[in-house]
Amino acid sequence: MTPANNVPALANFEKAFRPRSVAVIGASDDATRISGRALHYLIRAGYRGEIYPVNHRRATVQGLRAYPTLADVPRTPDIALIALPSRLLEDALTDCVEHGVGAAVVYAAGFAETGSDGGALQDRLAAIAAAGNIRLFGPNCLGLLHTDSGFTGTFSSAFDKALPTPGGAAIVSQSGAYGGHLAYLCEKRGIGVGYWVSTGNEAGTDVADCIHWLALQDDVSVILAYAEGIRDGDSFRAALRAAHDHRKPVVFMKVGQSAAGATAAQSHTASLAGADAVFDGLCAQYGVYRAQTTQEQVDVAYAAVRGRFPSGRSLGIITVSGGFGVQLCDAAERGVLEVTPLAESGRAKLRALNPMGSDDNPCDTTAGWLNDMSLITKTFDVMYSDGGYDSIIGSFTMLPDSLTYGAEIRTAIGAGTREFLDRPTALCMEARPEVVRAYESDGFLVFDDSERAVTALAALAYFVEHFDTPIASHRKRTTRVDLGGEPLSEHAAQQILADAGIPFPASTVVTHPDDVAKAAADLGFPLVMKIVSPDIAHKTEIGGVILDVEDEAQASAAYLTLLERANAAVPGARIEGVLLGVMCPKGVETIVGVTNDPAFGPTVMFGLGGMQAELFRDVAFRVGELDHAEAVNLIREIKGYPLLTGFRGAAPADVDALADLLVAVSRFAVTHADQLDSLDLNPVLVLEEGRGALALDALITVRTTS
Amino acid sequence: MTPANNVPALANFEKAFRPRSVAVIGASDDATRISGRALHYLIRAGYRGEIYPVNHRRATVQGLRAYPTLADVPRTPDIALIALPSRLLEDALTDCVEHGVGAAVVYAAGFAETGSDGGALQDRLAAIAAAGNIRLFGPNCLGLLHTDSGFTGTFSSAFDKALPTPGGAAIVSQSGAYGGHLAYLCEKRGIGVGYWVSTGNEAGTDVADCIHWLALQDDVSVILAYAEGIRDGDSFRAALRAAHDHRKPVVFMKVGQSAAGATAAQSHTASLAGADAVFDGLCAQYGVYRAQTTQEQVDVAYAAVRGRFPSGRSLGIITVSGGFGVQLCDAAERGVLEVTPLAESGRAKLRALNPMGSDDNPCDTTAGWLNDMSLITKTFDVMYSDGGYDSIIGSFTMLPDSLTYGAEIRTAIGAGTREFLDRPTALCMEARPEVVRAYESDGFLVFDDSERAVTALAALAYFVEHFDTPIASHRKRTTRVDLGGEPLSEHAAQQILADAGIPFPASTVVTHPDDVAKAAADLGFPLVMKIVSPDIAHKTEIGGVILDVEDEAQASAAYLTLLERANAAVPGARIEGVLLGVMCPKGVETIVGVTNDPAFGPTVMFGLGGMQAELFRDVAFRVGELDHAEAVNLIREIKGYPLLTGFRGAAPADVDALADLLVAVSRFAVTHADQLDSLDLNPVLVLEEGRGALALDALITVRTTS
Repeated sequence: MTPANNVPALANFEKAFRPRSVAVIGASDDATRISGRALHYLIRAGYRGEIYPVNHRRATVQGLRAYPTLADVPRTPDIALIALPSRLLEDALTDCVEHGVGAAVVYAAGFAETGSDGGALQDRLAAIAAAGNIRLFGPNCLGLLHTDSGFTGTFSSAFDKALPTPGGAAIVSQSGAYGGHLAYLCEKRGIGVGYWVSTGNEAGTDVADCIHWLALQDDVSVILAYAEGIRDGDSFRAALRAAHDHRKPVVFMKVGQSAAGATAAQSHTASLAGADAVFDGLCAQYGVYRAQTTQEQVDVAYAAVRGRFPSGRSLGIITVSGGFGVQLCDAAERGVLEVTPLAESGRAKLRALNPMGSDDNPCDTTAGWLNDMSLITKTFDVMYSDGGYDSIIGSFTMLPDSLTYGAEIRTAIGAGTREFLDRPTALCMEARPEVVRAYESDGFLVFDDSERAVTALAALAYFVEHFDTPIASHRKRTTRVDLGGEPLSEHAAQQILADAGIPFPASTVVTHPDDVAKAAADLGFPLVMKIVSPDIAHKTEIGGVILDVEDEAQASAAYLTLLERANAAVPGARIEGVLLGVMCPKGVETIVGVTNDPAFGPTVMFGLGGMQAELFRDVAFRVGELDHAEAVNLIREIKGYPLLTGFRGAAPADVDALADLLVAVSRFAVTHADQLDSLDLNPVLVLEEGRGALALDALITVRTTS
Repeated sequence: MTPANNVPALANFEKAFRPRSVAVIGASDDATRISGRALHYLIRAGYRGEIYPVNHRRATVQGLRAYPTLADVPRTPDIALIALPSRLLEDALTDCVEHGVGAAVVYAAGFAETGSDGGALQDRLAAIAAAGNIRLFGPNCLGLLHTDSGFTGTFSSAFDKALPTPGGAAIVSQSGAYGGHLAYLCEKRGIGVGYWVSTGNEAGTDVADCIHWLALQDDVSVILAYAEGIRDGDSFRAALRAAHDHRKPVVFMKVGQSAAGATAAQSHTASLAGADAVFDGLCAQYGVYRAQTTQEQVDVAYAAVRGRFPSGRSLGIITVSGGFGVQLCDAAERGVLEVTPLAESGRAKLRALNPMGSDDNPCDTTAGWLNDMSLITKTFDVMYSDGGYDSIIGSFTMLPDSLTYGAEIRTAIGAGTREFLDRPTALCMEARPEVVRAYESDGFLVFDDSERAVTALAALAYFVEHFDTPIASHRKRTTRVDLGGEPLSEHAAQQILADAGIPFPASTVVTHPDDVAKAAADLGFPLVMKIVSPDIAHKTEIGGVILDVEDEAQASAAYLTLLERANAAVPGARIEGVLLGVMCPKGVETIVGVTNDPAFGPTVMFGLGGMQAELFRDVAFRVGELDHAEAVNLIREIKGYPLLTGFRGAAPADVDALADLLVAVSRFAVTHADQLDSLDLNPVLVLEEGRGALALDALITVRTTS
C-alpha cells in the first residue's frame, strides 16, 4: 500500500502503473499497429504479470492465448489497454467497469481535439470511468509504462528499440510525442526513467494527478513534466504541493507563451493555455523549475536525479585556462550563483602549490599540473576545504579525453574530490561518451558547456531553497460580504476593502461648518479637502479641491470656499458635504491587482506603478492566499524591487506593510472567489519604512452571474 | 597578391598564414614538447612548403636536416616559429629581422600577463618587430594554422589527434585554450575550419588585425572570435567594418561581463575588459553577432558557414506533433522570428492534403503521413510555395533515425525541399551522426533542439539585415573649440553645444527693463524668468524663478519683481540680468550621454529618463560618429522605445529630431575626443512629432591634461 491510496482522487494509480495483470483489448498480431505494439512491448520487456489478449476472432495473439471477451479472462485484470476504434469504446469501457477493472487506457484519437462530436463521446467515456471508479488514461494518448516491472501500456514508437533504462526520473506529458522525445533524451544522457505517461486528452487522468501520485513514490527522484494547458488549478496546486513536501524536483516545460504558440496549443489539445505569467508565479510559489528549452529541462533533470543538493549559492571554479573561468563567472552572474573570493588560508595554499596559477576563485591552474597531477588533486581539496563552496565546477576542455593523460587525470581529480561529493560537483569537458559515463559513475555531473553546468547547479540551489521553506497551508478568510451583481462605486469598493484590512488614507465627510475644525484636527495636517456632490463630476475644474490645508482655521475657511465655488459653478447642485483627507506623504507608487484565472482562481499581481513598469511588463503573480513570507517573495521578484529598498539614497519603503496589504488582498480575493472578477488597487503608495502602505484608488469588477 | 596587401597595417599576413617556407627555431626531436610539437604537426600534416629546423646542436631533427643558425638556412623563410625560452627571444627576433623573415610566432609565456618585468621584455619584442616590419604573433600564444596548405604553426594539443577538416570557418582567439576548444567543437559539428589563430598577449598582432585580414579572404565564410579585452578600438572597428563590407559573419564570444569575470580576465591577458554594454553597442553597429554561450557561438557559425541567408524574418514550421510546433512558436517569439499565418491558397491545399493535420503555420502534420510519404513532400512544397517563408523549420524528433522509415523519410523531405534550399531550412531531429551528416549533405541545417534552431536562423536574419545596410563612413566634424582644462559652467557648456547644433530651449538674458517686452515677444509665451547672478546659487529658494509668464505686461512686472527679491534676499549681489526662457511643452524625458571609452573613444549613450530606466539599465550605446539611420537604430534598441511611438494613446514623439540631436552629439564628441571626458544631456525632452527635441541641461567634463 502506498500513501497514494490515502488520497481518494488518486485511486487505482497503483494498478495503472504497476499492474499484476493486464488485458489488451483488441490485441493484434501485427506489432506495427497500435493494437499490436503495446502487446509486443509487454512480451519483449518480460512483463512479470499476467497478460490477457482479448480478441474474439483469434485463439492466440503474438503467441499468447487470446480470450474472446473480457468475461472470458480468468482473473480480473488490474488494467485494460483498449486498442479499439472510437465506436467500440463506450461498450468496452462499460465492460471494464462491470468486470471490476482498475484502470484503462484509451489510445484512439478523434475526440475533443477535433471538435464537438468527439468531445461528446469523450465526455461519455469520462462519465463511465468516473461512475465506475476506473482510472482512465486518454483518449488520444500514447499510454504509460513502469520500467522496473516491465509494464509497457504504450504503443509509442519512442520505445521501439528498447524500454528506458530504469532510474529515478518520471516523465509526465500531455503530448505523447514530446514525452517520447524526453524519454529518448534521458536515455542518451544516462538518466534512468522509472515511470512514463502520456495523458493526451485527459478525460479521466490529467498531468496534475500523475505528478501528485508520482511525487508520493519513493523510487521517483525527479519529475519531468510537459503541458500545454492546465484544466484544474486546485488539483494542480495540490500536486505541486505534494511534490514540494516530498522534496521531489519538478522540471516543467509549459508551452504556449507566445500568441502564435497559444493558438497552436489550443488546436492541439483543446485546452486553454492560460496566462503565461500566472504559470511563472505558480512555479515560483511551489518551487517548480520552469525550463525554457528542452535541453534545459533535461540538463536540470540530469542534475536533480542524483538527489544531492547544495547548501547555498556559492560556486567555486577551477579551470585549466583563464578564459573559461571568465566565461563561467559571466554565466554564474546570469544564473545567480556567487563566485565568492577564496579565504586567505586557501589563497596562501594555492600560491605555495602553483605559483604560475591564480590564487583565487575562479582558480586558473594553467596546464602546468599535467606534469604533476597531485597539483590538481590539491587544488580541488583547497577549493572544497578552505573555499567551502556549496558547489564546484571544474572546466577541463578535452583533457579528460586525452589518450596520454586521460586515465591519470581521472585518478587525480577523483583523489581531490572523493570526500566532498556530497556537494554537487560538475565537470565541463568534451569527451567520448564512455569517458563521460566513467566520471558520472565517480559521482560527477558532466556538461559540455559552461552555461549549461551553471544553469543546472543554480536549479539545484533553487530546489533546495524551496524545499527548505514550508508552503503555508492555513486558510484565513476575511468576512464574506455580498458584492452584488452590479458594478461597485469606488467609494463602496473602498469601504468593503477597508473592512477587509486594506489601508486607505484616512478621510471623513463633514456636512456642517461647526464640525470642520475638530474633524480636521482628528485627521492631522496637512489635509486635502474636496467637495462631495453627485452633480459635480470634475471637481478640479471648478476649484472643488483644495490642497495643503495646514491648520484648523484654513480648514474652516476652505470649507466655506468650497461650498461657494460649488454653488457658483453648478447652481442648485446637491451638496453632500466636504471630504477631508490626509495628504499622502511621498512614497513609491506600486500596483496591486487580482485576476480570477479560469484555471487557478484568484491570482494576485504586483508591480511598480508608472508607464515604464507597464512597458517593461515588470509584474509578478501568485495564486490563491498568500502568507506574509510569500508576499515578500512576490514583492522581491520584480526587477524594480530595488526602488523599494532605498534606491539612489532614498529611504527604504515599508515592504512589510506592503506585504500585509498583499496578504489582505489575497484573503479577500479567495474569500470572494465566486463573486470577484478582478480587483485593482492603482496606485498603492508604499511609504517610508514603519509608515505603512496605502491604496489610493480601488476598482472591483464583480462577476456577472452566468 | 591578396587585397590584404593594400592595407599597410596588415602587412605580411599572407606569409604568416600561407607561408612557402617555415623556420622552426629551437626545433626539438621530442614531439611532446613545445619545441617539437609544431614541427611534428607540420610533418604529419604534409605541409607543402619548405621546413627549416634551426638547432645548433643537431644535424637532423625529426628526420629533417637541421641548420645551426638562421643564417645557414638556404632561403629566407616566410615565417619563423620561435620555440625558445624568454632570455633568447630578443636575439632570435632580431635575427629574423636581419634575415628578412616575414612573420614570427613567439610561444613562450611569462610576459605582460605576469607583471612588469615580463611586460618590459614584451615591449622590446614588439618594438623589434615593428621596426623590422615583422608580423609578430604572441608571446604567450599557441600560434596559428592554415588547414588547406597543411601549415601548422601551433603546438596546441587541440590538434594532437588531427588537424581540422578544411572549410570556411576561421577561428580567432586571444585564449589558445578557448580557440582549441572551438576547433574541437567545429570538428564535432562538421564545420570545416580553414584558419585558426591564437593571439595571446598581442604584442604585434591582435584579434582585430586577424579579423580584418580574414575578412578579406575569399575562402573564409564565417569568423568565430573570442576576446577578453580590445586594445585598439580604431583598428577593431576597421576590422568589423571590413567584415561587414565583405559580408563575412562574425560570431563573437566576448567574456568579462560580470564583475568577477572582469577581474579574472584582467589577470589573465592583462587587458582591460572594457564596459560590456559598449561592446554590445559596437556589435549592433557593425552587425557582429555576440554569442552568450559557446554552444550558441558554434550553432550560429554552423548555420552561417553555408553562406545562405534568409530574405527576412518570417518562419514556416512543420511538425509531426503539435507540441513541438507550440514550443517552436514560443522560441520564435523569443528569437524574434515571425510565425506568420499561411495564405489561404496554402491552407486550402493543406486541408485537401491532410484532413487530420493542421492547415496553418505552424503546420502539425500528425504522424499519419508515415503511411503516405508523398504527404510530407507536398506539405513542404506548400509551405515554401504558398507560405513563401524566408526560412523553414521541420521538427521530426527521432523519426529520421528510424530503421523502418528513415531512408524513405529522407527521400520524401528531399523531394519537397530540393527547389527551395536557397532558403535556410533547418530540421530538428535526434539521430545518429551519420544520419545528421546525410541531411547536412542534402543541404539542411540539423539541430537537436528547437530553441537552438530558431536562434541560429534568427542570427542569419540578423546578419543579412546588417550586410544589406551600408555603414556610413562620411566624417562630418563640428567646429572645433578649445574646451579649456577647467570645468565648464552649465551656461558655457550650453553655448558650446548649441553652436554645435544641439537644440536647447530658446532663452535670452535682459539687463534693462526697457528691453523686456520685446525680448519676451520675440521668444513667445508662456515664459519662465530667472534672476542671473553669480552670488545667488539657489534661485528657487529666494523666489528668483517665475513660471508661466503669459504676456508682455507680466514679463515687465516679473523683471522688476525678480530684481527686488534678489536685492532683498542677497543685498549687494552682482546681478547680471534676468533670463527669459520659453516654457517647455510636454514631452518624453530621455537621457543622452557620451563617455570616452579607453578602447573605443567617444561613445554615445541613449536611454529613457527617470529612475526606472536607470534601474532597468535600459540604455544602449554606439561608438564614434553616428549618421541619422544609426541614431534611429540606437533609439529603437532600448526596451522603452514604445514610449516614444505613442504609448497608451499618447502622441508619437519626434524621433527624427532626437536622432538629429544624437548625430550632433556624436559629431561634437568625435571632434573633441582629445579634450572630452564625458558629456551628459539630462534630460533631453522629446516633443511631439514635428516639434523637435530639446536638451534641458548640459554637463561637460573636460579631460584633465595628463
